[in-house]
Amino acid sequence: MELYFSPLACSMASRIALYEAKAEARFVEVDPKTKKTLAGDDFFAVNPMGLVPTIRLEDGQVLTENAAILQYIADRAPEAGLAPAGGMARAKLQQWLSFIGTELHKALFIPLFDKKMPDEGKARTLEKGEKPLAYLNAYLDGREFLLDRLSVADAYLFTVLNWKIATPVDLEKWPAVDAYYHRLKQRPAFARALSEEHALYAEEAKRHKAAA
Amino acid sequence: MELYFSPLACSMASRIALYEAKAEARFVEVDPKTKKTLAGDDFFAVNPMGLVPTIRLEDGQVLTENAAILQYIADRAPEAGLAPAGGMARAKLQQWLSFIGTELHKALFIPLFDKKMPDEGKARTLEKGEKPLAYLNAYLDGREFLLDRLSVADAYLFTVLNWKIATPVDLEKWPAVDAYYHRLKQRPAFARALSEEHALYAEEAKRHKAAA
Repeated sequence: MELYFSPLACSMASRIALYEAKAEARFVEVDPKTKKTLAGDDFFAVNPMGLVPTIRLEDGQVLTENAAILQYIADRAPEAGLAPAGGMARAKLQQWLSFIGTELHKALFIPLFDKKMPDEGKARTLEKGEKPLAYLNAYLDGREFLLDRLSVADAYLFTVLNWKIATPVDLEKWPAVDAYYHRLKQRPAFARALSEEHALYAEEAKRHKAAA
Repeated sequence: MELYFSPLACSMASRIALYEAKAEARFVEVDPKTKKTLAGDDFFAVNPMGLVPTIRLEDGQVLTENAAILQYIADRAPEAGLAPAGGMARAKLQQWLSFIGTELHKALFIPLFDKKMPDEGKARTLEKGEKPLAYLNAYLDGREFLLDRLSVADAYLFTVLNWKIATPVDLEKWPAVDAYYHRLKQRPAFARALSEEHALYAEEAKRHKAAA
């Protein structure tokens, strides 16, 4: 399996899931500006939306979207227990993947990252983001993970919360969310992914500076 | 099962799925302004996010988020074939549910519906929405459904595309998407859901006018 990723983007959740599952993958870095791989290949030829994560399987099939890829990675390594096999527990995993993808990732963080979104639009986005963050904070109070044990939803939520470093989202207002983030950061698979992607991000920033 | 819904909101996808599956449910209407059911019950007590769709099962368990609820409805009626049972076909369903939920529902339509989002923010939102609509248009060209046959993802996509009636999103720019929307509109389950929810929406508008 090949995982197309960009450093510290939402594809980091897939890297964390692969490390937690002790699964093999070939990591293919995509430059978020040029949409080319570091080898110079056109990423739009793999995913016309140009979005990471994207995975390409051994048989050439391509899968996109975090919620789908994370469940696929979990199901390929059932012994790691990163996704309940079925029933209501699986439905709850899908609920959290959807909540993170819609309420936090797309509705809150993406407009804040958008250089062309006017400041007034960002302010409104930030205001609307209070509701899901308050909901999450109340939910996580007294809980270690989103489900009864670690799942791919935690890998996704951690990755999205990590964007606080580049946005005005202030996790200190949400102590249960902040504590959850810092707890997960101590796990070896999470710490390894974060450290590796920080290093790759620094390289990416250098390349962009050199090209400017 | 109880389905909490508001007329013409994204919960209409669950109604369509239930009709396609010939499944029973009790429909509980939630006023989107007061967040109370028509019987006067506090909807926040059921879902603290106050969002429809929400389903409550016979044993009292609550499930939220379109992607999770639609898969749950499909899995309860496997004979209707509204979701592939597993494997890559199921992963592709999850990919489309995520694409619709993130790129179209949350990133494009919700900011356009938001009365407090400044016009400049809406203009930028509309501009960014061109990419997923163009991608969808290219994908649907020559295809009848998102997957090989009708699935809950079509119910969700139809419901979201129907919001063109209340937003500046112009489907005529995307002929394959527009044709797909009009084809689905002819299916009895889709037509019935749309007609019923239009009538309920008119009642809701009357109530809001009377209360203003």
